[in-house]
Amino acid sequence: MAAALVRKLVFEVPVLRCRRLTSISQCLISRTGLRTMATGVKVDLSGVFPPIVTPFDEKENVNYDELTNNLQRWNSMPLRGYVVQGSNGEYVFLNKEERVEMVRRVRQATPADKLILAGSGCESTRDTIEMSKMMGDAGADALLVVTPFYFKSMMTSEALINHFTKVADNSPVPVILYSVPANTGLDLPVDVAVALSKHPNIIGMKESGGDVTKIGLIVHQTKDNNFQMLAGSAGFFLQSLSVGAVGGVCALANVLGREVCQVQTFFSDGKMEEAMKLQHRLIEPNSAVTKRFGVPGLKTAMEWFGFYGGPVRNPLLPTSEAHKEQLREAFTRNGFL
Amino acid sequence: MAAALVRKLVFEVPVLRCRRLTSISQCLISRTGLRTMATGVKVDLSGVFPPIVTPFDEKENVNYDELTNNLQRWNSMPLRGYVVQGSNGEYVFLNKEERVEMVRRVRQATPADKLILAGSGCESTRDTIEMSKMMGDAGADALLVVTPFYFKSMMTSEALINHFTKVADNSPVPVILYSVPANTGLDLPVDVAVALSKHPNIIGMKESGGDVTKIGLIVHQTKDNNFQMLAGSAGFFLQSLSVGAVGGVCALANVLGREVCQVQTFFSDGKMEEAMKLQHRLIEPNSAVTKRFGVPGLKTAMEWFGFYGGPVRNPLLPTSEAHKEQLREAFTRNGFL
Amino acid sequence: MAAALVRKLVFEVPVLRCRRLTSISQCLISRTGLRTMATGVKVDLSGVFPPIVTPFDEKENVNYDELTNNLQRWNSMPLRGYVVQGSNGEYVFLNKEERVEMVRRVRQATPADKLILAGSGCESTRDTIEMSKMMGDAGADALLVVTPFYFKSMMTSEALINHFTKVADNSPVPVILYSVPANTGLDLPVDVAVALSKHPNIIGMKESGGDVTKIGLIVHQTKDNNFQMLAGSAGFFLQSLSVGAVGGVCALANVLGREVCQVQTFFSDGKMEEAMKLQHRLIEPNSAVTKRFGVPGLKTAMEWFGFYGGPVRNPLLPTSEAHKEQLREAFTRNGFL
Amino acid sequence: MAAALVRKLVFEVPVLRCRRLTSISQCLISRTGLRTMATGVKVDLSGVFPPIVTPFDEKENVNYDELTNNLQRWNSMPLRGYVVQGSNGEYVFLNKEERVEMVRRVRQATPADKLILAGSGCESTRDTIEMSKMMGDAGADALLVVTPFYFKSMMTSEALINHFTKVADNSPVPVILYSVPANTGLDLPVDVAVALSKHPNIIGMKESGGDVTKIGLIVHQTKDNNFQMLAGSAGFFLQSLSVGAVGGVCALANVLGREVCQVQTFFSDGKMEEAMKLQHRLIEPNSAVTKRFGVPGLKTAMEWFGFYGGPVRNPLLPTSEAHKEQLREAFTRNGFL
Repeated sequence: MAAALVRKLVFEVPVLRCRRLTSISQCLISRTGLRTMATGVKVDLSGVFPPIVTPFDEKENVNYDELTNNLQRWNSMPLRGYVVQGSNGEYVFLNKEERVEMVRRVRQATPADKLILAGSGCESTRDTIEMSKMMGDAGADALLVVTPFYFKSMMTSEALINHFTKVADNSPVPVILYSVPANTGLDLPVDVAVALSKHPNIIGMKESGGDVTKIGLIVHQTKDNNFQMLAGSAGFFLQSLSVGAVGGVCALANVLGREVCQVQTFFSDGKMEEAMKLQHRLIEPNSAVTKRFGVPGLKTAMEWFGFYGGPVRNPLLPTSEAHKEQLREAFTRNGFL
Repeated sequence: MAAALVRKLVFEVPVLRCRRLTSISQCLISRTGLRTMATGVKVDLSGVFPPIVTPFDEKENVNYDELTNNLQRWNSMPLRGYVVQGSNGEYVFLNKEERVEMVRRVRQATPADKLILAGSGCESTRDTIEMSKMMGDAGADALLVVTPFYFKSMMTSEALINHFTKVADNSPVPVILYSVPANTGLDLPVDVAVALSKHPNIIGMKESGGDVTKIGLIVHQTKDNNFQMLAGSAGFFLQSLSVGAVGGVCALANVLGREVCQVQTFFSDGKMEEAMKLQHRLIEPNSAVTKRFGVPGLKTAMEWFGFYGGPVRNPLLPTSEAHKEQLREAFTRNGFL
Repeated sequence: MAAALVRKLVFEVPVLRCRRLTSISQCLISRTGLRTMATGVKVDLSGVFPPIVTPFDEKENVNYDELTNNLQRWNSMPLRGYVVQGSNGEYVFLNKEERVEMVRRVRQATPADKLILAGSGCESTRDTIEMSKMMGDAGADALLVVTPFYFKSMMTSEALINHFTKVADNSPVPVILYSVPANTGLDLPVDVAVALSKHPNIIGMKESGGDVTKIGLIVHQTKDNNFQMLAGSAGFFLQSLSVGAVGGVCALANVLGREVCQVQTFFSDGKMEEAMKLQHRLIEPNSAVTKRFGVPGLKTAMEWFGFYGGPVRNPLLPTSEAHKEQLREAFTRNGFL
Repeated sequence: MAAALVRKLVFEVPVLRCRRLTSISQCLISRTGLRTMATGVKVDLSGVFPPIVTPFDEKENVNYDELTNNLQRWNSMPLRGYVVQGSNGEYVFLNKEERVEMVRRVRQATPADKLILAGSGCESTRDTIEMSKMMGDAGADALLVVTPFYFKSMMTSEALINHFTKVADNSPVPVILYSVPANTGLDLPVDVAVALSKHPNIIGMKESGGDVTKIGLIVHQTKDNNFQMLAGSAGFFLQSLSVGAVGGVCALANVLGREVCQVQTFFSDGKMEEAMKLQHRLIEPNSAVTKRFGVPGLKTAMEWFGFYGGPVRNPLLPTSEAHKEQLREAFTRNGFL
C-alpha cells in the first residue's frame, strides 16, 4: 500500500514541471558549469561544502561584512561550494528576511563555479515552497530541505513523500533532502529517499545521522537515478566516500576546509592509508565543534584559524572557558594548532 | 555550580521588572478577576483549558469566522479559558502575523472571566520576547512558552534557565513553562522548573510528558512559590490532580470540554470512584485525538461534536477513512457517540 | 490479524491446565486466605510489596541469616507480602540454585498470610517454565514474569503473547506480568496485557515504566477479567491508585515499608490531602534508591533504618561517599532521618 | 577523577597475571600460529568471523551433529575463525553446560589455524570470570565479553572498567570487548575502550552499533596498543575497514562467508570499486538476517545455502511465510539466489 502510494506520487509529476525544469537548468548551466548526463542536466555535488555559520555582532544582529570576509578566505580553498542555513547557520534563529538576505549576500561574494546550497526548510509545506522560491531567486543553485519534524509521530513515509514532492514540484532549483536526527528527532527512511530519488527535481541527500549502512544502501538502490549522497559530518566522511557518497557537508570545513577536501583527494587518488590517517585526525576536532560544543564551539574555533566566529544567538550560550580549553586540546592533540 | 548559577540568575531579577509587573497585574485584575495571594498577585490557572485548534479553509488559510463559532460553543462550558497556539493550534505552521491575530480574535470572542494563555515560544530568545510582547498586547493573560529544542544537546539547565529568565524578565504578562517531549524531544528538567518557579513572572508549567512522578515532585519542591502545575493531556488528568496539579491543558477538551471539566469537579468533591470511571472512559478518545491520529484526528472528531474542524496544513495529512473508523470507535466504545 | 492471533492463543488454553489450576488454587487457599470471585479463585494482590534485596556477605555470597533478620522486621509491618527476585533482588546475578533457595528461605521466614511473589523470568520460554515450577514448589504464591528482552526487536505482541501463554499454561501458581523498561528497554504493550488478562492463570501486572495513562487504560480494558495492576514504584503510587491500581511493588518499601502502606491507607480512607502530602515526601527518597543510586543506594539506605543492606555483586559498585551524602539528604530533607 | 580511576585500574594489573599470560600465550602459539609483536604476543584477529548459530532440533535441544556438518562447510572458506555464543548463537537461551559444550564441540571440529572466539559474558562479574575460565579450558582462543547491561543506568565508565579489568585479570585467554546496543541498550563508550586497550589481556573490540565515527576514533586513540577493532555487522564492513578495522564478526557470514571475505580481499588489494559494489549487494541480505528478521531469518536463509538452520528457541518465533518471501527477495534481488 505504501509502495503503491510511492509510485502514484512519483509518477504524478506533471509535464509542466519538467518544462519549467529545463529552463531552470539552462539558467543554471551558465552560472555553475554543470555536467550534462544522459538522463538530463543535474547539479554536480561532488566535493566538500561547509555549512557556513551566520556571523552576528555583539547585539546578535547579522554582520554581513564579516560574512564577506569569511567567504573571501573560503573562496581560495578547493571547496565545491557552501551550504547557507544548515543547522550550523543557526537558521532556526533567523527570520524570513534574514534567511533570504544571507543567501543573496553569499551569492554576491562567491565565484560562479562554486555552488550555493540554501536551506529552505520550514515546518509547513507552504512556507517551505515560499522560502524555496525566494532563495532560488536570491541565487541558490539548489535547496537543502530538512524534514519537517515538530509533529514527528505524524511524519509517515506518506507524509514525507507528499511534502518533498510538493516542494520539489514548485521549487525553481533542484532539491536536496536533509536528514539530521540529532536536531529533529526524525530519521528520513530509506524507502522515502529511494522513492523521492525518482523525482526529476530531487538530486540528492545530506545524511547527518552517521548511519553509513543507510548511506551505502541508498547509493545502491538509487544507482539508476543519479542520486547524490552527501555525508553530513566530517566524522564519517571517508567511510561514506568508501560506499559511494560523492561529497560532504561538514561543519568542520568552516575551520579546516583544506584538510577535509584533502581526505576526498586522497581517497580519489587511491591513497587509502593517507586518507585514513587524515580522517582519524579529524574526528576529535569534528566532534568538538559539533556534538560536544556545538555551534558556539565551532564559532570559537573559527577565531583561532583567522575567521570571524563571533557570538551565537540565545538560547545558545557562549563557550565557557573550561570548554574552550577542551576544544583547543581537540585541535592541538591532532596537530592542527 | 549549577545551583550557584540558578541562584544568581533568579536573584538578578531587576527591580524595574517588579514594578512593571505590578501595573500589569493591576490591568489583569480588572479583566480576569484574579485571586490575590500573600506573595503577590497571580493568575489562577485552576481548571481546564482546551488548546484550541486553528481552523483553516480549503486553501489552508485561517478561517476566523469558524474560530468565532467554535468559541461561542466553548464559552458556554465551565472551561477556565483557552490555550491559543499550543501544539494542537499548529502554531509551527503559522507565520508571525497569523499567530498574533489568532490571539486577538480569540480575546475578542471570549468573556473576560475566561483566561487566554497564548503560546509565544520561538527557537530564539529574541523572537520569543518579541512574540510575547505582541501577544500580551493582543490580549493574552499569560504566555505558554515551549522549551527551545532544535539544538537539543545544547539545551543545558543553564541555557534553559537563561532563556526563560530573559523571556520572563521582558514579558508584559506572566509566563507558563511548557514541556512537550513528544514533539520537541526535550524534557524540561525538574531542577530547571524549580529554579524558575522563584521568578515572580513565572507562574506555572504545562507538563505534557506524562511523567506524573515529575509532576508530584515539582508540586512538592515549589510548594512555597505558588507555582501551578497543569497536566498536558487528558490521559493522565486525574492522576495529576491526585498529586497536586491545579488543572489541565487537554486536547480532548476541544471535543469533550464538559466531560474533562467533570473529572476535576468529581475529584474536588471527593468522588474518587466517579472521577476514576470517567477518567478511564476518556483515555481512549484522548489517545485517539493525540498520539494515534494527531491534530488531523482531533479536527475530524470535532466535526462529529458540532464544531468546525476543517483541514490541517501540510505536511500533516487528512485523516484516512480507515483511521476515521478507528477514531470513531474510540468514542463510541466509551459511550461518547 | 494480531487480534485474530490474540483470540486464538487465548482460547486455546487447554482443559488440562484448568483442572490443574483448581487444585493449585485449593492448596493456595489454605495458605494465603484468598478471596473467591465469581470467575474463580484468584490471589488478592491489594497492598504493598517490597521487592526485597538479596543480602550478600563480603565475598558476595548470599547471607541467608541476614535475610531472615530483615524479614523479621518486615513481617511486623502491614505489607501484603514480598517480591523475591525483582530487579532489586539482583536476580540477574544469581544462579539457578540461589534463585530458588531465596524463595524457599523467604517462605520459611514469612507468615502464611503474607504473599510471596517470585520472579521466575528467564530469557527463554523453557527456562522460565522450569524456573516457575521450581519456585512454585519452593513456596511462591504467584510468579512475577519479566518480559524477555535480549532480542527486543523480535519481541512482537505475537511473540510476547506466545511466551506468557506458554509460561502461564505450565505454571503451578498464577502469573503476574512484569514490565520494567528502564532495565529491559522493552515496554509491554497495552494490547498484550489486555489479551493476556483473559488467561485464567494470569492475574495481574507490575508496571514499572511510570506511564499512568497506560495503567488507567489497562484497568479500564480489563475490568471484566479481575486483572490486578500494581504500580512498580513508590514514585507514582498514589497516581496509580487514583486510577485503579490495587497496590504497589515499591523498592522504597524495603526501607520505608510503613510509610508506603500509609499512602494506600490514606487513599482508601478518602484522605486525599494526607495521601498527597505523604506521596510527595516519598518521591525524593524513592528516586534516590532507584534511578539515581540504584540497588547500591537502596542497600546503603537500609542500613540507616536498621536493616542489613550489605554489598552488591559486581559489576554494580558500592555507593560512593559523595553519593551517600546526597542519598542521605533525600531522606533527611523529607523528614525520614 | 574518572581519568584518575582509569589510570589506577589499568596500572594495577598485578605481576602475577603477566606471568600467567606468558604461559597462556605460549600454549596459544602452538595452536593458532600467532604473530609476535614488539609489545608482546597477541592473537591476530584480521579477517572474517561468522557468529555461528546454535543448531536446535525440533524439541529445541542442541543438535551437535548438525553443528559439525555446518562447520565442515565453513572450514573450507577463507574465514579467520568462529564466534561461538555471539548474539546470533542465542547464548541467552543456553544454560551454562550448553554454553561450554558448544565451545568444546566447535574446537573439536575446527582446524588449529582458525580461531575460536567464545562469548563468555554474563551479567555478574563473578559468573563472567567463571564462564571465561571454562570456555578457555574448552579450547577458546579468546573471549568475546559483552557489556553487562541489566542495570544500565548504573553501568558508568567506572563500573565497566572495573568489570572488564577483573574479567581480563582472571581470564586464561585474551579478552575482546563486545558492544551491541541493539540488544543491550548500552553503548560501550570510547573512553572505556581506550582505557581498557592498555590492559595486556584485552586485545580488541567488536563494535555492533554501526557508529563508524566511533570505530575510527578508537583505532586512532589506541594506535599504540595493538588494539584490534572488528565490525560487528556486514552492513558497515567496508566502511569500517576504510578507517582501520582489522576484520568483522558478521552474521551474514553464516550464509555468505566467501562473499564477506571477498570484500576484505578487494579492500586489501586496493580494488575499492569492486569492494564497494560487493558491499552494496550485501546490505539488503545482511539487514534481512539481522534487524528485519533476526536469528529466525538467519536460520531460514542458511537452509537455502545448504546449511542446517533449524528452529529457534522460544520466545523467538519461526519466520512466517510472508517474511520468508521478503527474506528470499533480499537475496535474489542482489544476485545471491
